[in-house]
Amino acid sequence: MQEHAKALRRRHRTIGLVPTMGYLHAGHASLIRRSVKENDETVVSIFVNPAQFGPAENFKKYPRDLRRDTAILEDAGADVLFYPSAAEMYPEGYATQVNVERLSDVLCGASRPGHFRGVATVVAKLFHIVGPDAAYFGRKDAQQELIIKKMAADLNMDVEVKVMPIVRESDGLAMSSRNIYLNADERKDAVVLRQGLVLAKRMVRRGERSGRAIRQAMKRLIRQKRSARIDYVEVVDPESLRPVGTIRGSALITLAVYIGATRLIDNCSIKEG
Amino acid sequence: MQEHAKALRRRHRTIGLVPTMGYLHAGHASLIRRSVKENDETVVSIFVNPAQFGPAENFKKYPRDLRRDTAILEDAGADVLFYPSAAEMYPEGYATQVNVERLSDVLCGASRPGHFRGVATVVAKLFHIVGPDAAYFGRKDAQQELIIKKMAADLNMDVEVKVMPIVRESDGLAMSSRNIYLNADERKDAVVLRQGLVLAKRMVRRGERSGRAIRQAMKRLIRQKRSARIDYVEVVDPESLRPVGTIRGSALITLAVYIGATRLIDNCSIKEG
Repeated sequence: MQEHAKALRRRHRTIGLVPTMGYLHAGHASLIRRSVKENDETVVSIFVNPAQFGPAENFKKYPRDLRRDTAILEDAGADVLFYPSAAEMYPEGYATQVNVERLSDVLCGASRPGHFRGVATVVAKLFHIVGPDAAYFGRKDAQQELIIKKMAADLNMDVEVKVMPIVRESDGLAMSSRNIYLNADERKDAVVLRQGLVLAKRMVRRGERSGRAIRQAMKRLIRQKRSARIDYVEVVDPESLRPVGTIRGSALITLAVYIGATRLIDNCSIKEG
Repeated sequence: MQEHAKALRRRHRTIGLVPTMGYLHAGHASLIRRSVKENDETVVSIFVNPAQFGPAENFKKYPRDLRRDTAILEDAGADVLFYPSAAEMYPEGYATQVNVERLSDVLCGASRPGHFRGVATVVAKLFHIVGPDAAYFGRKDAQQELIIKKMAADLNMDVEVKVMPIVRESDGLAMSSRNIYLNADERKDAVVLRQGLVLAKRMVRRGERSGRAIRQAMKRLIRQKRSARIDYVEVVDPESLRPVGTIRGSALITLAVYIGATRLIDNCSIKEG
């Protein structure tokens, strides 16, 4: 992959990278299509990164379907699939970690210690292997987006980090490879993440500025679903991810909720006025 | 710098990077000359990196002389001097650290916590800014060499890390910017680091295989100098840096000694037989 990408760069071809963990859905396809539009060559990586799963998390059970993925990425116009093994990415004696301090310790990072260190490290590796001009990520992982942008800026990586809007099912559920875990009842309940965000937006539009009031209203709504267990519901500063007491300017509303055994996340940005 | 280097690469010029903290000496000059020989363009960076100095260490007093450095690097044939400020390298809110586990915690890393995280981080930044084909380091910093090679391999950085032999004063003292700190008596005593290594080599040549016996003989020799205070004297595996009980194959003999208030390091490789 590295040699191929180097040869492309030598021929002045621009490269877009779409890093994924596979089990692609319409959200990934939107990233690939954008990359195809903006670059000469589009590389899609599929790597279920063990370093970003906690010991109690479902690394082995994470859904995989390479044949289906290949059809989706070909249909979206990708040029190259990069599909390394864990042994290639982390050979014996592997020792190097990239950590983005502060941003990695809150929200999903508080619930999943080490998760974002694993994300930053693997994305740094992918950037070095592929050497993309631009890399494409989904807005659903808003915290990941901030961390990767921060890493790229702090380490002077010469890559543009681009972020595309969340793609949703018709009932509003954010697309996620993890949605496959949901049974029929859970699938119905899962729409409550989006409903919480819609409620928050409506409250802000009607003049509510208290982060606490918004959080509490969202939590009350979510708890009405039998299968829902809240991990966090937060109103935070969109740059620092620190909790916002009173909304001024803009804020990120973000939540993680277990639906049955499946942890789902969603978020939206709000602007005052 | 990043734009200039990018333009060079676009023209298929190869780039050699010599990262330094300035106050250049003949050791640096040997790195620059080698880079000039092997690459189309040679970039020398001078950056006294605050992140690799401990709170009690002499970051502010580290010697600086840009005019002298410029003469030396021009004389050695360098094409570009990259001389960033600390505020450019670590702007407010800087948060990203690169850490090479295990190798960073022993020897100099045990005496200087966080030192090698600072080194790895700044070298990663320099690699991203300059995008060199090859980067040149001195063998005096043997642990740094291993850590940078490990970082580059683990993170799939497309740069060749090259290491050049230690350049010494006529009495054997390894060249170092820090030698300027020594007064006349200390300067004489400082040769004891090299003498310790010569003693160790002689012992191995005569059949000694015990790491402990070699360490103890070296320590006895060093303690004869009034101004010397040992930080560490170790016989270690040249890959893992773990202490060697019985020498088999090759070993790295490495030491750090305070001469007065100045901490100096030196090392040599030995091969059995």
